Amino acid sequence: MEPYELSLAAASAAISAGELSPLELAESSLNRIAAVEPQIHAFATVTADLALAQAKTAGEEIAAGRRRGPLHGIPLGVKDLYNTAGIATTSSSRVREHFIPETDSAAVTALAEAGMVLVGKTHTHEFAFGVVTPTTRNPWDVNASPGGSSGGSGAAVASGSCLVALGSDTGGSIRIPAALCGTVGLKPTYGRTSRFGVASLSWSLDHVGPLTRNVTDAALVLNAMAGYDRRDPASVDLPVPDFTAGLERGVKGLRIGVPTNYFTDRVDPEVAAAVSDAVTLLEGLGAVVVEVRIPRAESIQAAEWGILMPEASAYHRHAMRANPELYTAEVRALLEVGETILATDYIDALRMRQLMKLEWEQMFANIDVLIAPSVPAPAVAADDPQVYWPDGTVETATDAMVRLSAPGNLTGLPSVSVPCGFSSSGLPLGMQIIGGPFEESTILAVARTYELASDYVGRIADLSTAPA
Amino acid sequence: MEPYELSLAAASAAISAGELSPLELAESSLNRIAAVEPQIHAFATVTADLALAQAKTAGEEIAAGRRRGPLHGIPLGVKDLYNTAGIATTSSSRVREHFIPETDSAAVTALAEAGMVLVGKTHTHEFAFGVVTPTTRNPWDVNASPGGSSGGSGAAVASGSCLVALGSDTGGSIRIPAALCGTVGLKPTYGRTSRFGVASLSWSLDHVGPLTRNVTDAALVLNAMAGYDRRDPASVDLPVPDFTAGLERGVKGLRIGVPTNYFTDRVDPEVAAAVSDAVTLLEGLGAVVVEVRIPRAESIQAAEWGILMPEASAYHRHAMRANPELYTAEVRALLEVGETILATDYIDALRMRQLMKLEWEQMFANIDVLIAPSVPAPAVAADDPQVYWPDGTVETATDAMVRLSAPGNLTGLPSVSVPCGFSSSGLPLGMQIIGGPFEESTILAVARTYELASDYVGRIADLSTAPA
Repeated sequence: MEPYELSLAAASAAISAGELSPLELAESSLNRIAAVEPQIHAFATVTADLALAQAKTAGEEIAAGRRRGPLHGIPLGVKDLYNTAGIATTSSSRVREHFIPETDSAAVTALAEAGMVLVGKTHTHEFAFGVVTPTTRNPWDVNASPGGSSGGSGAAVASGSCLVALGSDTGGSIRIPAALCGTVGLKPTYGRTSRFGVASLSWSLDHVGPLTRNVTDAALVLNAMAGYDRRDPASVDLPVPDFTAGLERGVKGLRIGVPTNYFTDRVDPEVAAAVSDAVTLLEGLGAVVVEVRIPRAESIQAAEWGILMPEASAYHRHAMRANPELYTAEVRALLEVGETILATDYIDALRMRQLMKLEWEQMFANIDVLIAPSVPAPAVAADDPQVYWPDGTVETATDAMVRLSAPGNLTGLPSVSVPCGFSSSGLPLGMQIIGGPFEESTILAVARTYELASDYVGRIADLSTAPA
Repeated sequence: MEPYELSLAAASAAISAGELSPLELAESSLNRIAAVEPQIHAFATVTADLALAQAKTAGEEIAAGRRRGPLHGIPLGVKDLYNTAGIATTSSSRVREHFIPETDSAAVTALAEAGMVLVGKTHTHEFAFGVVTPTTRNPWDVNASPGGSSGGSGAAVASGSCLVALGSDTGGSIRIPAALCGTVGLKPTYGRTSRFGVASLSWSLDHVGPLTRNVTDAALVLNAMAGYDRRDPASVDLPVPDFTAGLERGVKGLRIGVPTNYFTDRVDPEVAAAVSDAVTLLEGLGAVVVEVRIPRAESIQAAEWGILMPEASAYHRHAMRANPELYTAEVRALLEVGETILATDYIDALRMRQLMKLEWEQMFANIDVLIAPSVPAPAVAADDPQVYWPDGTVETATDAMVRLSAPGNLTGLPSVSVPCGFSSSGLPLGMQIIGGPFEESTILAVARTYELASDYVGRIADLSTAPA
């Protein structure tokens, strides 16, 4: 087994025991990057020299008895939407081709202070506005899309290029690539993690969080990322628990909400069966299944897009006026559409979201978590990003993939996507576990219970056997 | 002296001493209403029978030793935008001509519990969308407008028709009629008083508060109105002090900010002189005057209207589609304009407001209060609602009056308007004292100091001598 194959928790234990040095681990990750990048193109920038220097320093600190904690010396990929001081931060767009920030984003600062080693910046769908990440391929099938917008992060973690990568999630952009690449992806509660220094897609829907190999790793990274930051206007000043505490407390008596609508519409039968099997497994471990009806389901997509589109267009307004030709045609068209939306329509969407929030919170009075597919279908073809449904209809990847993740963005509720099987074509399937406000500990404990009892979490794609 | 001429504090003391009964006071107010209404038309509905019954009950409770506090038995006028259970609540619009709410608004509930006696519903500019209140006349000159939108409340308090009236303030609608009618008008901090059950004009700018005869009365009413209410999404859960405590602590060492821009542009020389005299008076009492520059002054009006217009149009959208002909032509045109505003423009206005809030809070690090004119000119003619400036330009009453009050709505900072003199034409002039967030006690103490030292606060218009 090569060091790059270790999970964060396992690598951390090996480093702590003196069995592995951060330098060996960084070299292993960088070798893996060199081996798989020609096929998957997960990275916008690989910071090999920096990574080796940081790993060397980490090793020296640890050897000198100054180990900072479980993240010390662990290779990290950072979505190219996050500012990194002195390192190009392109948002995978020609608009920011030459942008080199002077300061780190809040999350990068926090993880650097925890001793993580930056191996590179991962590709995003341009400015996070899409779910395909056209630069990048899926490690499980290089003809497939990794999803997006954090597609580089999903592909990097799933391929073993780094142990952890950061993502951002406005309509599912952490959970979608996590599900499609077979990694864990955690979108915390709105306000739990600081978005300072991360390019915005739609600030009232944007969240930041990690993609990891397994659930414990997600809890370890969230421990470092969570907390109040006055530089993010949405940041919430609440105590931050240790998210690893009680992770293995099981699900006995826990009430799992299973939706009878919305999350059941236009879902691939293989996906539905995998999620259903996972619920049955958790029920066998003592959880209580409660059927729930999703409120205002007919308005979810209208609210998501009615908020996201104009907020994105407002954010990009000046750049779109100055240099529209630097955007890809796809994203430019979306931003132009957002410019035409009326304020009254936007306001109606905001009001609808407020009602949804209240009614979802009421729903959570009767359940502890909600379990549903993360995405309705496995990864789409990279060169034809559409979902072909059995009834003959065709849905764009964007419409299909955002459909099931948008509720987490609108309500702000925490949601973790975990691998829950493979399609007959060999592509990963994912399910999400959604919790009440600031209940990350609860959803992680359910995810951890599932991970221990199932066989799907923690795998790395073996690119040598992937269909080409 | 007739009972209706007493201030709240004086009437309360007389009731407490057994020198005056609530019934005598209510009868005096109702007689005054009967005498002056034919000239000023302050009320949409006079609730004489209810008032007499409530006053009788109040008298019995007090006689039985169950006095509820200083508001018990005091006549109150309520802007017709506030829901009153079982009593027509028209918002002075044909759209709600037949609307009889089933429950009271939060403020009406609170004041009823404090024992106040409802003498009637006061006129508003239709749905609070204007500063003229065309139904109503100014008690100091019945050819003049009382201002608005709480014009009925301003006229009622200034004419002696009631001791207190409620107003709402989205772009100055409490402070403008208070200034133009010569009453005290208090707009608390955004979130301090619940707007539950009050028709919205623009929810992110709407505030509710009282118009009173003097400053102590405003503090007494705020004591009953302030506090957290989960039914108002903007309500802030903060401790509520006794706003009458320390009211007479003086201004020694207090830093008064005097603007060198914005509040100095296009201001009637008589208004500017009156405010300047007031600042000099306070300086003589120990206050320290600090010149300040208003940040982002050039964007204040754009932000105010860029937020207010689409929020109003969103609120009225369904009624405008169902029955546009029931709106006055003036308000219908405004709501139609609001429908055309783009979401990106609205979002830009929201972002500008956020920057203003931060910079105003920074400004308040160096001052305790800001003093400025409440309105740039005295009341305009009722039949020609425009301000004619010496340079030959003409400004609509709306543009002129909202100009100086809008900063208080955008920043959410508390502001109290107090009478500070009369124009050569015999019309009241007003100045506003603005404080830091939730510093109502500070602005009320400055206002009270000014009231004690000056000669303008607490007057009632003698309609028998008003020009006709």
